[in-house]
Amino acid sequence: MTAAAAKFAGANAVVQFIAAAAALSLLAVNVSRGTEQVGEYLGPGPTGVLQAALGNLPEVLVCAFALRAGLLQVVQAALIGSILANSLLVLGIAILVGGIKHGHLHFDARSPRMIASLMMLAVTALVIPTLAAELHTPASEHEEALGIACAILLLIVFVASLPFSLSSDPSRTVRHAEKAVVVEDGWPLWLAITVLVASSLGAAVVSEWFVAALEPAIETLHISQAFAGIVVVAIAGNAVENVAGIRLAAKNRPDYAMSVILNSSLVIALCVVPVLVLLSFVLGGVVLTLVLPPLLIAALLLTTLTTAIIVNDGETIWLEGVALIGLYCIIAAAFWWG
Amino acid sequence: MTAAAAKFAGANAVVQFIAAAAALSLLAVNVSRGTEQVGEYLGPGPTGVLQAALGNLPEVLVCAFALRAGLLQVVQAALIGSILANSLLVLGIAILVGGIKHGHLHFDARSPRMIASLMMLAVTALVIPTLAAELHTPASEHEEALGIACAILLLIVFVASLPFSLSSDPSRTVRHAEKAVVVEDGWPLWLAITVLVASSLGAAVVSEWFVAALEPAIETLHISQAFAGIVVVAIAGNAVENVAGIRLAAKNRPDYAMSVILNSSLVIALCVVPVLVLLSFVLGGVVLTLVLPPLLIAALLLTTLTTAIIVNDGETIWLEGVALIGLYCIIAAAFWWG
Amino acid sequence: MTAAAAKFAGANAVVQFIAAAAALSLLAVNVSRGTEQVGEYLGPGPTGVLQAALGNLPEVLVCAFALRAGLLQVVQAALIGSILANSLLVLGIAILVGGIKHGHLHFDARSPRMIASLMMLAVTALVIPTLAAELHTPASEHEEALGIACAILLLIVFVASLPFSLSSDPSRTVRHAEKAVVVEDGWPLWLAITVLVASSLGAAVVSEWFVAALEPAIETLHISQAFAGIVVVAIAGNAVENVAGIRLAAKNRPDYAMSVILNSSLVIALCVVPVLVLLSFVLGGVVLTLVLPPLLIAALLLTTLTTAIIVNDGETIWLEGVALIGLYCIIAAAFWWG
Repeated sequence: MTAAAAKFAGANAVVQFIAAAAALSLLAVNVSRGTEQVGEYLGPGPTGVLQAALGNLPEVLVCAFALRAGLLQVVQAALIGSILANSLLVLGIAILVGGIKHGHLHFDARSPRMIASLMMLAVTALVIPTLAAELHTPASEHEEALGIACAILLLIVFVASLPFSLSSDPSRTVRHAEKAVVVEDGWPLWLAITVLVASSLGAAVVSEWFVAALEPAIETLHISQAFAGIVVVAIAGNAVENVAGIRLAAKNRPDYAMSVILNSSLVIALCVVPVLVLLSFVLGGVVLTLVLPPLLIAALLLTTLTTAIIVNDGETIWLEGVALIGLYCIIAAAFWWG
Repeated sequence: MTAAAAKFAGANAVVQFIAAAAALSLLAVNVSRGTEQVGEYLGPGPTGVLQAALGNLPEVLVCAFALRAGLLQVVQAALIGSILANSLLVLGIAILVGGIKHGHLHFDARSPRMIASLMMLAVTALVIPTLAAELHTPASEHEEALGIACAILLLIVFVASLPFSLSSDPSRTVRHAEKAVVVEDGWPLWLAITVLVASSLGAAVVSEWFVAALEPAIETLHISQAFAGIVVVAIAGNAVENVAGIRLAAKNRPDYAMSVILNSSLVIALCVVPVLVLLSFVLGGVVLTLVLPPLLIAALLLTTLTTAIIVNDGETIWLEGVALIGLYCIIAAAFWWG
Repeated sequence: MTAAAAKFAGANAVVQFIAAAAALSLLAVNVSRGTEQVGEYLGPGPTGVLQAALGNLPEVLVCAFALRAGLLQVVQAALIGSILANSLLVLGIAILVGGIKHGHLHFDARSPRMIASLMMLAVTALVIPTLAAELHTPASEHEEALGIACAILLLIVFVASLPFSLSSDPSRTVRHAEKAVVVEDGWPLWLAITVLVASSLGAAVVSEWFVAALEPAIETLHISQAFAGIVVVAIAGNAVENVAGIRLAAKNRPDYAMSVILNSSLVIALCVVPVLVLLSFVLGGVVLTLVLPPLLIAALLLTTLTTAIIVNDGETIWLEGVALIGLYCIIAAAFWWG
């Protein structure tokens, strides 16, 4: 009787989690569509800034609520996991699908190379504090101060990179191109702003629900917190952008696909992580520093190097996609046990 | 009197070891020639698979016997050492010889770059379990399960890579080209199969002899097990292929030389290592997991990155060869003490 | 009263240190000018060797005196810090200034790539002994022997690289070009030799003064020994060369700027460090081995990889300069606390 009830409660927890994840994805689509429509009235510069600010809103909200709930390990794993899922799984699937459909993929490597350089900076900003803590150097006693300093430096580089990424962001050009093909669906300004505000508020509410459903779901499924963060939250939280990147690759637009996919990794590392570090000091709850689990950081460093090597030559085939997917599976396997 | 006997026994051990190594090399040449001859009757696809399967047979046999004899450290060092010897010493000598003879070496970097990407995958599959064990993460208690999972993933990527490496493997084209110049020496099918079977069986017998002679030779020479694996076994076990790669570079065929040399590193990492991991669970004796000595793994990672940087630009000069050889000596020096 | 005296003594220490640094920089300029003038009478080959030998004389002298004074930590930090300051801060400023003035910077990547390959070798020669010591492998008990072996290997590669760097060193071509524009200011041989000998002797005297002023200055400023080495000594000790590199970039000569800046990092790693290791055994005082603080080594490795990725494509924009400067600040921040 109690077992049956427990089982029911367990199933319930998983169902609730899936429902919350689905609702969050829908709201994320609406936030992004609302941003685009408001952008029609704003011109490209401010739209870009608005997109950068709101595009990662759901992720920031989920992580902020999870930090307040004390789920530090899940947040750390979800943040790094989002980068791993993007740079390995999504990029791998995009290369595999594009390569099978179109053979050798040639792409303009300038933008991906720039992203790879900036990723190395961002990754170093995570490696150094983590290593300092592991090695018990004097800086390890000032973990929080070092975290804040690095976060501010990363945000400065992020702001400096905005003109570059706005001018070269191909996703917006693509969207315009697609829009020309599809029926023009401009919204009046009041509708655009209403959708944007409503879905942003909705995302805030649902994020709290998502975090509340997360812990019981983890317990029911008997997976480790780290695995939940790296695989479940990372994939669920980025599902919409990920599908977009893979669709671009399938349409033989490897330039756009590479830039969109790698750029969303970069935004997490250069903007979402430092914003959450700074927020965690303001909001109360657990403090997020840049001292992360070393195995996660090692996986991130190896991923960044592998991606840089693959992207560097402006050419790829499906086999490199398989290798990237394999790399993701190996890393995920190492976090399977709790 | 006893000292003289001991000295004689010691000299004997070294002589036996050298004899076994020489016999093994000869049999390796015959296995490879037999495979090629049987291949004449099979067509390129199956020949490639046969070559991939039998080409590393002597190495797999030696390592399997050594594992059964409990020489885990030697096997680990020999496997990683084969990659290091290939990617540093042999590649370095090939670049040095080719560069001195022909000045700047220009080569088609596409195949080497692909190999470098796949090497990063394979190296990550060794780094992650080793780091997990060093850091005592929860996965470190499931070392064997994680090793099997990674081994299977690596073998899947290896199988997926076969069509690519068969279609672009230049060594076969070269051999055909060379054969056209030399007298055509086709063997009748019965002879080819007989040579192949006999030399494979011979390799199995001699491998056991080689392993039995290894331990007394190590003791006589007062070198560490790790040094014996990295330098002695790694160079002895790959002597034939190595000479082939260097000869290609001397003949100003840097494309072929690079591919042959780097590919044999890749085959060890993507195929020989995982096969031995899986075999070690079946055969009994010591179990081989992917948790390896961390210094070996660090040397492997640095080697892979250096090779990727050197190979990436499709151009090299003799000085890079000197640097690679120097790198090999530094790594070998670090394992000199037992 | 005593507090005022202490304060005065403190201010005095900092003033003395700044005066010593300024004097050392002036003497460094004179050593380099004297070498050039003597070179007019020698031909390009011997001049290059003379420059390589005397160009880093002040740095070698400072480090040797500091080792004799027991300031091991400062020397280690200053050596690695010089490489970091060069490859991150100076290269970053050069790219930023050049990029702002001239937009996209295109440069011939051949020489920088070669330097990046050799840097990987040199960095590995530092990583391996440090890791061996950290992991307590058998080699860690033979730290000094391993250090000497690696130092000799690095010097062999350095000597082998001289013909290459002499033939392609663009700084000398530039200097000649500049000289053609400026008034020809050849000195008679006796003057050139006198300036060279006098400023070399002066550098030796002032180096001792600089080291003597260093410790009180560190105490007065309440900074850690590591931070003093990485930031203060590294920047003060290389100020002259650094300004030269940045000036070249501002003049839209990115090829020269890259080569000059990266080459001075390489010379420190391949020549200055091993020479000091060998000297430290001869001179007495603290012995310098290649076992360095692991966080410094990790920063060095990440810097080398980032530089290799940025330099590899022969193209850069100001944003990559910002990223490099940010990286330097993050690393410096991690060594702020003592």
